[in-house]
Parts: sequence; structure tokens; C-alpha cells
Amino acid sequence: MNNIPRIMFNDCTSDDAKIIIFGAPFDGTVCFRPGARFGPQAIRDDFLQLESYSPLLDLDMEDSAVYDSGDLEIPRGSTVTALDMIYDEARRILAEGKIPFMLGGEHLVTLGTARAVLEKYSDVVFIHLDAHTDLREELVGQELSHATVLRRVWDLVGDGRIYQFGIRSGLREEFRWAEEGHTFLHKFDLKGIEQLPAILKDTPVYVTVDLDVLDPSLMHGTGTPEAGGITYRELEQLFVAMRALNIVGCDIVELAPHYDASGVSTAAACKTLREMLLAASAEK
Amino acid sequence: MNNIPRIMFNDCTSDDAKIIIFGAPFDGTVCFRPGARFGPQAIRDDFLQLESYSPLLDLDMEDSAVYDSGDLEIPRGSTVTALDMIYDEARRILAEGKIPFMLGGEHLVTLGTARAVLEKYSDVVFIHLDAHTDLREELVGQELSHATVLRRVWDLVGDGRIYQFGIRSGLREEFRWAEEGHTFLHKFDLKGIEQLPAILKDTPVYVTVDLDVLDPSLMHGTGTPEAGGITYRELEQLFVAMRALNIVGCDIVELAPHYDASGVSTAAACKTLREMLLAASAEK
Amino acid sequence: MNNIPRIMFNDCTSDDAKIIIFGAPFDGTVCFRPGARFGPQAIRDDFLQLESYSPLLDLDMEDSAVYDSGDLEIPRGSTVTALDMIYDEARRILAEGKIPFMLGGEHLVTLGTARAVLEKYSDVVFIHLDAHTDLREELVGQELSHATVLRRVWDLVGDGRIYQFGIRSGLREEFRWAEEGHTFLHKFDLKGIEQLPAILKDTPVYVTVDLDVLDPSLMHGTGTPEAGGITYRELEQLFVAMRALNIVGCDIVELAPHYDASGVSTAAACKTLREMLLAASAEK
Amino acid sequence: MNNIPRIMFNDCTSDDAKIIIFGAPFDGTVCFRPGARFGPQAIRDDFLQLESYSPLLDLDMEDSAVYDSGDLEIPRGSTVTALDMIYDEARRILAEGKIPFMLGGEHLVTLGTARAVLEKYSDVVFIHLDAHTDLREELVGQELSHATVLRRVWDLVGDGRIYQFGIRSGLREEFRWAEEGHTFLHKFDLKGIEQLPAILKDTPVYVTVDLDVLDPSLMHGTGTPEAGGITYRELEQLFVAMRALNIVGCDIVELAPHYDASGVSTAAACKTLREMLLAASAEK
Amino acid sequence: MNNIPRIMFNDCTSDDAKIIIFGAPFDGTVCFRPGARFGPQAIRDDFLQLESYSPLLDLDMEDSAVYDSGDLEIPRGSTVTALDMIYDEARRILAEGKIPFMLGGEHLVTLGTARAVLEKYSDVVFIHLDAHTDLREELVGQELSHATVLRRVWDLVGDGRIYQFGIRSGLREEFRWAEEGHTFLHKFDLKGIEQLPAILKDTPVYVTVDLDVLDPSLMHGTGTPEAGGITYRELEQLFVAMRALNIVGCDIVELAPHYDASGVSTAAACKTLREMLLAASAEK
Amino acid sequence: MNNIPRIMFNDCTSDDAKIIIFGAPFDGTVCFRPGARFGPQAIRDDFLQLESYSPLLDLDMEDSAVYDSGDLEIPRGSTVTALDMIYDEARRILAEGKIPFMLGGEHLVTLGTARAVLEKYSDVVFIHLDAHTDLREELVGQELSHATVLRRVWDLVGDGRIYQFGIRSGLREEFRWAEEGHTFLHKFDLKGIEQLPAILKDTPVYVTVDLDVLDPSLMHGTGTPEAGGITYRELEQLFVAMRALNIVGCDIVELAPHYDASGVSTAAACKTLREMLLAASAEK
Repeated sequence: MNNIPRIMFNDCTSDDAKIIIFGAPFDGTVCFRPGARFGPQAIRDDFLQLESYSPLLDLDMEDSAVYDSGDLEIPRGSTVTALDMIYDEARRILAEGKIPFMLGGEHLVTLGTARAVLEKYSDVVFIHLDAHTDLREELVGQELSHATVLRRVWDLVGDGRIYQFGIRSGLREEFRWAEEGHTFLHKFDLKGIEQLPAILKDTPVYVTVDLDVLDPSLMHGTGTPEAGGITYRELEQLFVAMRALNIVGCDIVELAPHYDASGVSTAAACKTLREMLLAASAEK
Repeated sequence: MNNIPRIMFNDCTSDDAKIIIFGAPFDGTVCFRPGARFGPQAIRDDFLQLESYSPLLDLDMEDSAVYDSGDLEIPRGSTVTALDMIYDEARRILAEGKIPFMLGGEHLVTLGTARAVLEKYSDVVFIHLDAHTDLREELVGQELSHATVLRRVWDLVGDGRIYQFGIRSGLREEFRWAEEGHTFLHKFDLKGIEQLPAILKDTPVYVTVDLDVLDPSLMHGTGTPEAGGITYRELEQLFVAMRALNIVGCDIVELAPHYDASGVSTAAACKTLREMLLAASAEK
Repeated sequence: MNNIPRIMFNDCTSDDAKIIIFGAPFDGTVCFRPGARFGPQAIRDDFLQLESYSPLLDLDMEDSAVYDSGDLEIPRGSTVTALDMIYDEARRILAEGKIPFMLGGEHLVTLGTARAVLEKYSDVVFIHLDAHTDLREELVGQELSHATVLRRVWDLVGDGRIYQFGIRSGLREEFRWAEEGHTFLHKFDLKGIEQLPAILKDTPVYVTVDLDVLDPSLMHGTGTPEAGGITYRELEQLFVAMRALNIVGCDIVELAPHYDASGVSTAAACKTLREMLLAASAEK
Repeated sequence: MNNIPRIMFNDCTSDDAKIIIFGAPFDGTVCFRPGARFGPQAIRDDFLQLESYSPLLDLDMEDSAVYDSGDLEIPRGSTVTALDMIYDEARRILAEGKIPFMLGGEHLVTLGTARAVLEKYSDVVFIHLDAHTDLREELVGQELSHATVLRRVWDLVGDGRIYQFGIRSGLREEFRWAEEGHTFLHKFDLKGIEQLPAILKDTPVYVTVDLDVLDPSLMHGTGTPEAGGITYRELEQLFVAMRALNIVGCDIVELAPHYDASGVSTAAACKTLREMLLAASAEK
Repeated sequence: MNNIPRIMFNDCTSDDAKIIIFGAPFDGTVCFRPGARFGPQAIRDDFLQLESYSPLLDLDMEDSAVYDSGDLEIPRGSTVTALDMIYDEARRILAEGKIPFMLGGEHLVTLGTARAVLEKYSDVVFIHLDAHTDLREELVGQELSHATVLRRVWDLVGDGRIYQFGIRSGLREEFRWAEEGHTFLHKFDLKGIEQLPAILKDTPVYVTVDLDVLDPSLMHGTGTPEAGGITYRELEQLFVAMRALNIVGCDIVELAPHYDASGVSTAAACKTLREMLLAASAEK
Repeated sequence: MNNIPRIMFNDCTSDDAKIIIFGAPFDGTVCFRPGARFGPQAIRDDFLQLESYSPLLDLDMEDSAVYDSGDLEIPRGSTVTALDMIYDEARRILAEGKIPFMLGGEHLVTLGTARAVLEKYSDVVFIHLDAHTDLREELVGQELSHATVLRRVWDLVGDGRIYQFGIRSGLREEFRWAEEGHTFLHKFDLKGIEQLPAILKDTPVYVTVDLDVLDPSLMHGTGTPEAGGITYRELEQLFVAMRALNIVGCDIVELAPHYDASGVSTAAACKTLREMLLAASAEK
């Protein structure tokens, strides 16, 4: 862990925490606009400007048991090394009985935490919010890519374990493949996400939010902006659903703050983080 | 009044006007990102690029009786002096039987006009659109702050005289306090605002619009952007309601144009100003 | 045609194409913020970052017969020359039995293609999406202007042949004039556009999209941003309708990319182009 | 004159003034990046943030007799009309025995004032600071262009009456033509400008400053940035020379503020204006 | 001290350190563009991207004894409180025999450290680099202001104890006053700074660098950019001189990072900090 | 080669050309701010806005024999593959008796062309302009990195074959190592570069320009801006020297255009390219 600042939510120590945050500043496989490596730093810089209380959830960070352990020091250039470091960190957190909450980085980082979570919770399901399918078998010959990450997760879990929402971009074949029953792929919005608590009950759930699921009107600061996304108010359906789910891991990925000089993308990412932390750590 | 440009809407003189605009370029208590002091200038620079006609209200600025008297020359550093200057200006306008329309500046400036309006209209009610509660008893030991301004107004008017809409951020205690009956606080959107004409009838009404009530997707140029806000189309409910209300004072605050290089925040502020001017000055 | 890059969608040649794209980088009559001359280049730079497949239409650019013939080399300063060059290019494309698809430039460029399309299809109707009426008789003494372009089209086609959607800004007289039956003017949104296939059946249709019909929260990069616009999701109603219409010409105008450093306006313009190309070239 | 704000330097009235400022917001012939039309407004917005005193010249605006008469209302589209309006305004100012000081706008506007100045002072010489030669016979068939303006001035005055400094871009033929003795063209910097007072003595002098003579490191906000320019400190040689010259007219052109979100280009333009006003109005 | 990140230069602890860094995020008296409150955070975010070695000084941060103690938590609104907090912190550091190095914030913060340094070193002299004189007796009625700070220091130390360099803006009276012998004011550049080691010998020296002494071509990110400043290479004369002086306190002020989206202003501030730390902590 | 636009300088064909340009949009090992992958596209978009004539060299692109062959399609993620593709392309160009001119991309791309050039010209020397030493033995365990690239070149050529100019950042050990005689390292500026023609005579020369050698005041758009760089006018010494040298290969690297919304960095890169092309292709 490097000496990047950590967010101090309250007096909660690493030992007392229920959720451990860590950053994974890796963006090595990005095709279009890189810069997601700066996501964790941007979120930490602005997080404390937010109020600690959520009127949506009626929960307060002051009561939450969250600890920020800083960023992984990921070297440039080796995708495999990056994923191994992420896996190790997530496994360490899970071994202590805590929930890992990763700040990306590009979306491929999810594969590292997914492996660790699967080791502990073999029946875990994945809730995936994204503009993009991320279901390619490969991209320009590479199996490990931001565009293949959910396919790699599927390699590990098989059919029926991945719920995708907000998807509005991908290859024709990816949509066809999903429709064959490999994933539950819901296009364009989050309709149906409110039913997941009833469906999944106590099943362990991992939530991965690619911030480009939000419409680029709000989320300028991301690598591959895709018009037609959800509003932040629509995203709030996720937080409400999460509160009733058995969350065992989370991540927020693809904030590339340099593309948004105004700072509103980072502010929205911070608020998303707060709501997810509150929902994941709430008493069920 | 300094030599900042004034908007010339038509040939209406100061004497003929029904509404007098003035700027209050003060942002001394801003916690996060300052710059609202540049709001009035930005609005004046771009206002005349707008058409004078509103298709929403079917009213035209060419028929309105509005005069822009320029900006107050507020010195930096003394909050009390700033509020006194604003109070004096608003009182002067009210004494002439006109409606003061203030361009902020940060939200605390509302306290100055509120005092003057209350002197003349002891039964005035306040309609407050904002992302934030602004109901703190104090902020870091200070009673006069952008975060306490509606609480200070409440000190003057007491329970049941403040209608808040679009609120989505604040301390838990502020929400609790409002819910005890001190204000009518409606979270997240403007639902119910359309009923105010029937409820308030001829009661004098002061309207204060913190532009951060708009979603930051449109309103990049503000100090504390808060995701999950209303769209401009939702804001139009206010203009329609205002047309049927007895408006005795208005303000628009918290435009900080430097955070929006694209200029769309300022353009939205200008359009908000036009609609509020038309609605406030319309024959009832 | 100059040596601006052309988009290579697939192996489709100029001869095989059903649709021919060309750029008209002209912005000589813009009143407020110029820069639409850079629209075609910006779209070409980023277009290939998009996936070729549309989940909305279930169509893929890989199957489409589209050829990009580059930009017209329009000299600065002469509006008449610019319109003549555009007219010539569109007529040439139409003479080959193909559909011209123009990338503006400011909105006046539509007049050039409109003239050519009318020569070939005397019964063509125009679908016009815009924030602005564009129905002035003249602007500051000029009959050829971005603000008069649809009025000039009306001069050619007469009453009942222009369908306008999303309109939210203009002179009072323009709205009055339209309401007298000269055009079908639908304010604020696209409601009713879904009925056009049933109404128009096989009538030849020209579609002109001024990108400022989109809300400026998404479309920062345009000359005259006007709050209260439609979302990209609302715009998708156009694409669905187009698929069932007999499209004989199209344009997308008023992208001014320099006002949007984030690039999301250009990304939205590219996606709009893809959907319109797919819908226009689809089998009916 | 429109209702754009005017700079109020002190109590100097139009009658008392020695120098009359006016704006010419025209950029109709710009080839690359337009936006110089916003130059006058940007300068007026920020000018008063400057101190009134110049340590370089030991002169103070408080003692100067300068009046700002606002902007010309130039319609878009007609270059000839624009030049005629500028000519009329400059002639009117000269007729009152005052010095016209024009704020552009693109460089072609200089032709309008040049015509008026020549009528009154048939022996006037021109000092021209620019990155570009501006000596083309025509540009894309047009004789009236930002790239031909000094050639058009030469048409009026003939050989040996134009001193060019800082020139670092142009056609080979333009440099050749100048070297044939038509103008005094000094490349790259201002060397020799300090000798002009001794050479010109009491000859009437018109000074035209294209701000792109400054290096783009300082002057981001201009249409055709050209690396290798002078520093602001080098530009100060002009101000010192002007103080000893018989100035009868001036302009500053080609500030396009939208390309510089930081505002430093506008700040540099304002300071250039202050120094030129002080030098031109100083007792000789 | 709040939980803002601290820079970890090496393993140096607070006890072992020779220099203690602290941030003073205060910008309450800024007249034009506020935002210097974000200076310390911006510097900390980017500092570690710099190499630790200085080729200019042939010194390395790895060998330096520097500790960063974080930011003061300064409430908005009270200038007096802010200065008292700064004074307390500087006095505490000095009492431990260390050198305080403050990161502003606006320039007024210097008054707080100046008071503390004077208590310990009654013969301390001040080296002041700035675009502005900062010698006003008052500004808009206020004695405590960014524009009066060096005058307030002079109130404490009297004539001949302040060396000013790079000054290029101020009231005529300020320059006159300085020239009467109250300060050594060198206009425009740093000429003469290299002689200070010979002049001052072992005299205790406090160095205050207002970053706007740098030309705005490099330093976009500051509140009052003033053309005609020094280059970074000229600034290096300060670092060389400092290495031979008896430094007892330092500050760097007026970085307002939001005005520079490119980040180069912050990068230059970081490098300035590194060189000053190395020069101040070097063996003499 | 992909379908990125190519610059059409004149009618010169690939066969007739003396110099072949190609782009290498790779930035996989960048540590701080990525984005150099967009350098070639940005240069191509703006290049033709430049005049074709150089007043500095008195040469004109219209007479030059230069052909642009487009960009390599480099997949993300594999550094070795990227270097191999570059090597292949450069070897192909050299085999045809032409000069390869590569547009980066990050600096590591130079290693690919260096290998090819060395195969053909075993005595080639390298002229290296940069802010950074780029002489590390490794970076975070990686031997192939933007920070090691000149060390890797040294591995191939040995002592005395690399001339470095403008260097102002690096590890202490890198400077020490260079000073041991491994390279000719000239710190801070280009002094001495004018003597290279006399020293090198007909020796084959490869020139690699990392644009961050320019001061960040001009070159905002680069990944690791380092204050204290050379001005563009200083850079012109390189062009003059190149004209008298036997140039066998060139590159320009590290333009990251997204960090410079103003476009002046790209404009400076384009001008650098023009001057290098003219100097390299001039008759000797």
C-alpha cells in the first residue's frame, strides 16, 4: 500500500471495520481514452465534501464501520501482475471476514476481486451495471481486457449467475450470446433490479458498477462515454436493492477524472460510493 | 452601484419598472468551491442571447416592466456588512413599491432580502429550491453561513412559513428538525409545488432558487454539485406555479461560472431568470 | 473534396453505397458562438470508437451500404456559394439514386440539400428536430441565416410539409405563424413522432437534426445551448420512426466541438449518426 | 451602439476624452478557429481587475482621458457592411479630434479604421505586430480577409509605409514580396522598434496589434496560434516606443477568449490595452 | 490537523525533521478569483510524481529531513482566527527548533508565520517574490488583506528588512512608498537576488513566494494572473541564493488549481516546493 | 495500417517520397498521465492549418518529398508486440531507401525505430531532446519503459553515441552514469547543438524529440510536464542544426493532446514536425 491519502470516515479502525476500501489504479487495457488510474485519488480528494448522511437510505456514514486501506501499488505494463495483486488484497480482506470494496481503475480489475470472492462464496452472483456488455471472448487477441471481463467472470461461474443492467453497447454476438441464457442481460435501464432481493434472498452478491452506466451528461469523466445512459436517480434503485441483499464484495470502476474539468463526475462517483457503502454495511 | 453592465431588456426605466434586478456578488462563507461572486456578471454577459419570448408561459420580456440596477459593491471579508448592504438595497426597492430580484452570490445573501421583505410583508412565505437543507444551527461555529441561511430565515418567521423542494443533502438532524414541523421539506423533486397557488392564494411569496437544485449534469457551474437533482423541465413547474402566486421578492443564487467552461450552466441560469421575471411580473 | 479523413465503415465502395455522407463545414451566419465548421472533423475522428451494432435497432453497420465522400471545401464568407456547393453535391448524389447524408456545419446548410431533394422528390416532407423554430422571415436583414432556414424551406414547399419537434425557443411571431397551419410545430419533446410512419406511409422524407434539440446537459458542444431539451433516450424515438419511413435525405447539424472539452457531445453526435444511418438504410 | 457594458476608467466623458474606444465584434473571414467576436466583451469584463497604474510607463489611467463608447452592432455575414460601419465610427471619432482605439474582432477590421485614418492623415504610417504576414493578394478568391488586410492597407498607402514586427508565418511569396521593399518586415521579434521614434518623429502613426504576435504559451485564446512568438516582456518595447510616437489610431485584434478557459489570455489583452492607452494618451 | 493526505518524502519522522510542512487553505480576502484554498491539496496530490533529485542543486529529497504535518482546519469567514491558527502552528514548529514551511492559501497567510518567526528571530529579513506590491495601507477598508500583507509585515519590522522581487503591479502610491526606502523593491525580475548571500550573511531569512511572480504562461492556476512575469528558469536564481542563506521559514502561496485544467501550474508549484525544501535544508 | 487520415502534403506518392511518416499510437508504459496514443491523430487533424513555408529555414513543404503512410494498428497491452511492429515498419521504410519519421506515442516507441536504423547504419548517432534522462536501468522491474528507452538504445550502441539536450529531470544515478562518459548529456538547454554538424559531419543521425523538452507553458499537452524547459525559439536551434546533418530517421513523441484543451500544444507539435521534415529533406 502506498502513501496515497485514505479517507477517514470516522474513528473506525481496520480491525473494527465491516468493509475495507482499497484502490486499484490500473488502466492498462483501455482502448479509447485512458486515465481511470486516477479514479481512486480523485474520489478520495473530494469524498469528505459530501454530507455523511443519506436522505435516500436514512443511514449515516458516522454509524458505518468502513476503513480505507489505501491504494495498491500496481506497476505499469503487466496485466497479470495487476490482477494477482488485486486478488491477494481481496482474499486478505475476505479472510478477515470483511467485505472488500475496490475503487478502480478500469473494469478488468473486477476479475481480481471476483476470483477471491468466488473462493470464499462459491454461490456468489454478480450484479453488473455498465453501458457495455463486456462479454467478448477476446479483444484484439487478448483474453484479459476491460471488454472481456464479465466473460472471464462467466468462465468461472457459468450460466445464470450474472445480472447485467443498463447495457447499451456491444457486439451483436455479445448480445446474442447473453440471450442464449448465459447471463441475465437487461438493456438500457435498471428495470427489474428491485426484484432481486426477492429472487436472491440470502445468496451472496458481488456488485460491480462501471460508472459509464450513467448517462455521459452527468459522467463526462470516463473513458468510453456512451449516450443514452441512466440518470443518477435511476441508479438509486441499485442502492435500495443493495440494502436488502447479502453483499459480500463491491467495486466502482472507470472514473477517468481528467475528462471532466468541472468535477461533477467525481462528485457523482463519491455519492455513489457513499450510498453503496451505506447499503452494503446496513443491518439486514 | 458599480459600473458592471446592466441588462437592457427594453425601454423600461427604473421608475416604470415593476421588478428591480440587482446583483450581490458575495461568496465569503462558501465551504467547498468558491466563485459565486462571478454569477451576476456571467448572467449579464449572456442574457441577451436568449429570445425574449417564453413558449412555456406565452409571455415576452418585451412587455415586461423590469429594470436592472447593477451590482452592489460588496467588500470582501465582512459577512455582516454584505448582508446590511443587501438589506438596504432590497428595502429601498420595496419602499418604491417594486419587487426586488437579486442575483447571487452564495445563498447567504438571501438573508438580506428576506429581512427587508419581512419588514414590509409580515406574512410572507418562502419557497426554497435547493439541493441542500441549509437548516444548520451553525457551521464551524458561524451562525451566518450558506449552510444556515434558511434556519436564519426561520428564526425570523417561525414554523410553517418555509416550503422547501428538491432537497437531497444535509445533516440527519436537519432533516429530523424539518420533519418536526418547522418547515415543509419535500425531498428530491418539486412534487406538490403545483398546489401552492391554491394553498397560498394571495399570500405574499418570496422565491429563492439555489441553482444546485438542478442536476449537476446541467449545472456544472456551482460550488457544491450534488448528483440526483431535478431536470430543467422539472424546474418549469416552479415557473408555472409562480405565475399564479403573489410574488414580492426573488433571488437566484450559487452560479459559479468558472467551473463550467462550456457555458451551459450560465445559459440555464439566464433562462431561469427570464422565466422567473416573466412569471413574477405577469398579470395575475 | 479535400483530404479530410473519411470514415471507412466497411468495404462498401462509392458505387455500392445506398447512402453517401458528405461534410459541409460552414458556420458563416451563426449569431452567438461559432465553431460548427469543426463538426464533421470531430465526428470522423471519433466515429470508429463506437461499436458498429445498435442494440436499439438490432442492425449493424457492417451490413450497411454507406460511403463517406469527405468534406466540401467551402470558402469562408459567401453564404450563396456555400449553399450552391451543397446543392450541387446533393444533386449529384441523388442523381446516382443514393441518399445524401450531410454533416454540418450550421443549420443553414440544410437549405442546399433541401433544394436538391425537392427537385427529385416534389412531394418530400421535412422532419425537423431542433430547440429553435428557425422560422424567421429574416435575421438582421438577412434572408439566409441559421434562424431562417426552415422558413426558406417553407418558401419552397408551402403549408403542411414540415414537421417540427422539440422546439422550445423562438420569437412569439414564429410560434404564432406556425400555429396558423404553416408547419406542424410540436413544442418541447417528440410526442407524436411515432405516428408519422402511419401518416406519411411511402411519402419521401428528409430528416434534419439540429443537435441542440438535445438538452445541453449532454450537448455542451453547440452554438446556442437552450435548457429544457430532450434526452438522448427521447431522441431514440426518431430512430425507430425513421426505420419505418421512406428516407431520401438526412443531415445532422450544429455540433461545435470546441465548447465541449470532455468529448461527450461528439460521442453523442456519432451515436446519433450511426442510428440514423442504420435506420435510413434498413430494409423497409 | 448596443448595450454591451462600457469600461468606466474614471469620470472622463465622451467630450473630454482624447481617446475613444469602440468594439468591432466581427470574425466573418476567419479560416481556422472563429470566436474573435467575443474579444471586446471579454476585455471589458476583466479590465477593471487590473491596477490603473503602469510601473513600466509610470503613468496612471486615473489621469488619462479615455472614453469607451461600446460595441458596434455588426450584422453577421456581410464583410462589406462590417467594414463600412467601422469606417464610419472611426471617421466620426477622428472628426472630433480624438484618437480611435478599436477592439477586434478579427484582423480585417483594421481596414475600416485604416481608411478613416488615411482620410485625415494622408502621411500616416502603420506599425503592425503579428505572427502572420497578412499580405496575401487574396485568400480562396476573396480580397477582403484576415489574411489580406495589410495588403489592402498597402493598396492605400503604397511602399514604405508599413512596419511589420514579430512575423513568423506566411506564404513564401508574401515574404518575397515584402522584401522587395513594399513593407519593412522584421521577422520573429521586435528588434528595431525602439528606433522608430527617431525615424518617424512627428509622423502620424497607427498601431495594430494582432495578439497572436505573442507566443501561444501566453496567448492560448486566439484563432491561429503560432509557436515561436514574443513574450509579453518583449511586447513592452512597443509600449515604450509608442510613448514617443505621434499616435493617431490603434487597435488590438484576434482575442478569441473561448480557447482559453484559464483567462490568462484575456488578462494579457487587458494589460496590453492599458499600456497602449497610457502610451498613446501620454504627453509627448 | 485534518485528514488531508500528507506527503511522505522518506522515513523522516516529525521528530527527526529539520523542516515541517503545513498547509493553510485560506483564501477569504481574495478580490478577483478565489480558489487558493485548494492549493495544498493539489500540491500533495502531484508532488510524488516528481523525481526526488534536483539537477540544479545536486541535492536529493531522499537525504532531506522534511516532514509534512498536514493542513490546518481553518474555518471560513474569520480572517483573524485564520491568522491566529497559523501563528500558533508556526510558533509550535519554531519552538521545536525546526523550520516552518507553509503552503497557502492566499498571501495574507504569510502574516501568521511572519509574527511567529519574528518572535524567535527579531532580526529576520523577508525575501518576497510576487507580481504585486502587497503594500497597501488598506483595501476597501480592511487592513488584513492579500493586498496589504507585506505592509503589515513592515509594520512589524520597519524599514530595510523586506526585499521584493519580480514586482510588476500595484498602486502608484505603493511604488512611491517603497522607493522612499521602506522596502527594497526590485521591479519585473530577480536581478540582484544573487547578491543577497553576500549582503545578508548569517541573518535569519524568511522567504515568501507568491506563485503569480511566474509569468501566467506557466502559472494559469492563480487568482490574479499578471502578464510580464518571470520564467521558471529565472525563478531558479532564488533556489541557488537560498542554498547560501540562513533560512528560518518559508511559504509558497496563491496556487489556485481550478483555473488550470492542464495541471502544469500545480506541477510547477511542486517543483518550486522541492527546490525550496532542498535549498533550505541543505548543509551551509 | 488503419484508416486514420493521412496528411496530404502535396502530390508526392509513396514511391517518390524521401521521407515516410507513420504513427505509433502506443502509451502502455506511461507512469503518470497517459494519452500519448492520441498524438498522431491530433497532429494530423491540425497540420494543414499551418502554412507550408518556413521563414526560419526558407524552405517550403510544397517542394518536399514526404508521404504519410498512416498509423500502425498497435494492440493494447503488449509492449513487445508494439516494438516489433514499429521495428518492422521502420525497416521496411529504410529498405526502400527512405527516411522513417515516426509520430508517437510515448517515448519507448523510439526503441523500435532505433533497432531498425542501427541495422542499416551501424554508426548512427542519436540526438535526444527531452526533459528527462530516460536512462534508467529499469522502472518498477520493467526494462522496457518510457523511462529506460535511451538506456536500451545505449545497450545497442554503447558509449559516446547519444547526445542529450534539455535534460532537467531524472534520478541522481542517471546523471552520474551519463557523466561517466556513457552519453553526452547537456542539462537544461540546447547549448552546443549548433556544433554538431562540425563534429558529426556525414555520420548518420537519428533525432528523437520528446516534446516535454519544451517548457510546459507552451506544452500543456504532455504526460509529465516539467517546469524549466526550453522555449520554442530555443528549439529552433535543432532545426537549423538538422539542416546540416545527415538525417536517417526521426521521431516526435509524447504529445498527449487531451491535457491541452486550447490546442496550442498540438499546434506547436505540428510546427515542430514541419520544421523537422523540411530540415531532414533539404538538400545538403
